[in-house]
Amino acid sequence: MTYCVGLLVDRGLVFMSDTRTNAGIDNISVVCKMRTWEVPGERFICLLSAGNLATTQSTISMLEERLVEPSKRKPAILSQPSMFQTARLVGETLKEVIKDSSPTGESADSRFLGSFILGGQINGGKPRLFMIYPEGNFIEAGQDNPFFQIGEHKYGRPIIIRTYARDMELADVAKLLVVSFDSTIRSNLSVGLPIDVQFYETDSLVAGYRHRFDHRDAYYKEISEGWSESLKTAFDRLPPFPHGVGHQD
Amino acid sequence: MTYCVGLLVDRGLVFMSDTRTNAGIDNISVVCKMRTWEVPGERFICLLSAGNLATTQSTISMLEERLVEPSKRKPAILSQPSMFQTARLVGETLKEVIKDSSPTGESADSRFLGSFILGGQINGGKPRLFMIYPEGNFIEAGQDNPFFQIGEHKYGRPIIIRTYARDMELADVAKLLVVSFDSTIRSNLSVGLPIDVQFYETDSLVAGYRHRFDHRDAYYKEISEGWSESLKTAFDRLPPFPHGVGHQD
Repeated sequence: MTYCVGLLVDRGLVFMSDTRTNAGIDNISVVCKMRTWEVPGERFICLLSAGNLATTQSTISMLEERLVEPSKRKPAILSQPSMFQTARLVGETLKEVIKDSSPTGESADSRFLGSFILGGQINGGKPRLFMIYPEGNFIEAGQDNPFFQIGEHKYGRPIIIRTYARDMELADVAKLLVVSFDSTIRSNLSVGLPIDVQFYETDSLVAGYRHRFDHRDAYYKEISEGWSESLKTAFDRLPPFPHGVGHQD
Repeated sequence: MTYCVGLLVDRGLVFMSDTRTNAGIDNISVVCKMRTWEVPGERFICLLSAGNLATTQSTISMLEERLVEPSKRKPAILSQPSMFQTARLVGETLKEVIKDSSPTGESADSRFLGSFILGGQINGGKPRLFMIYPEGNFIEAGQDNPFFQIGEHKYGRPIIIRTYARDMELADVAKLLVVSFDSTIRSNLSVGLPIDVQFYETDSLVAGYRHRFDHRDAYYKEISEGWSESLKTAFDRLPPFPHGVGHQD
């Protein structure tokens, strides 16, 4: 499994992804599920992947193939005029890879499915965030749905829903995602450390802060242990359950 | 879907279940998924159900069929000498019902699957808690796995894992479960209010406090809103994310 989140706030975008990949519970490896591209001053793009690793890696390789014309020495992923067109390109490429892998073409029960979260900004546009499905179609984040999760999304969702605010600092978003990842990692063996984080600041048009947390990371430990304590304190402060002794209704 | 939890502490057992049942998203109803039986001073039994409603209702009806001999005018579920034997009876009955419903017998992809959480105490034994699978087999809660969830268990699991302690008061367990249910209900439409709660105090051998929360319930509202606030406060108190401006590694 996998857990990746992309989150949109006024100040920009924050991406986080785990690195565990497995072919059965007795065959696990570490692989980075976060890829970024940038042309400083022109565009920044980040892609998070979940699903069949052969499918997502092949899709990314195709997106990176340089364009044929020697005058345009850029990967295909950097060739699009807008984030919307970039999302289309990723979707079409993904769909094509799945179709090539599956004897029966792409279908909901294919073993070769993959999905992506795509975010970034291109000069002249706003920061945008998309979720791209194996069928090649996609949806965009907005005011009402400011984040996307792929992979094992359930354990870490309630804390995001309750804590997210559009005016958060990127550092606070990252802190929130560390809590969300820690909740997930404690509950599902197939999501694991290290985790990668990538910041993007609105209108910077350049990659922001990037970091990899592993199990020795002091901040990760502090959050993981501190959050359990904080939750207990918060829980203790909630009003007590109002049952009367012997009260039956 | 469904969300039910049974939790074991030194002081006893707490059971909580939602009431939403659906045959498609446009066809939802309210049904109680919690059944209790008691012979005061002798035994108390509580059963939470998830899965195909015809299967679980039919299983419960069979468990309630009175024994043949007129001298023993008790439902079958009340006829067993121990909680372990009671779990066996529930498992066997469930397996039989699924087998009768499925043309191919019970199997992992049957449309007629159901599962149960069974808890209670019989005079001479300790309070015990079981999770019963569609195959009729079951596992028991212990020191290391003090609670069972059935149905949509993921959203509400992290808070239980982080907050549970063996020496909790039953009222605190109920408060914890209200938080866990609220997190689930906010995330999955197929889990819904009202929710039922049942207490059982160790060695009381009689049903404890029972209550149904609906959306007008003042305490439920207080927890639902208060928890979001408490989480935000707890989150704000965590150490800030340590990224240096322009720091890239």
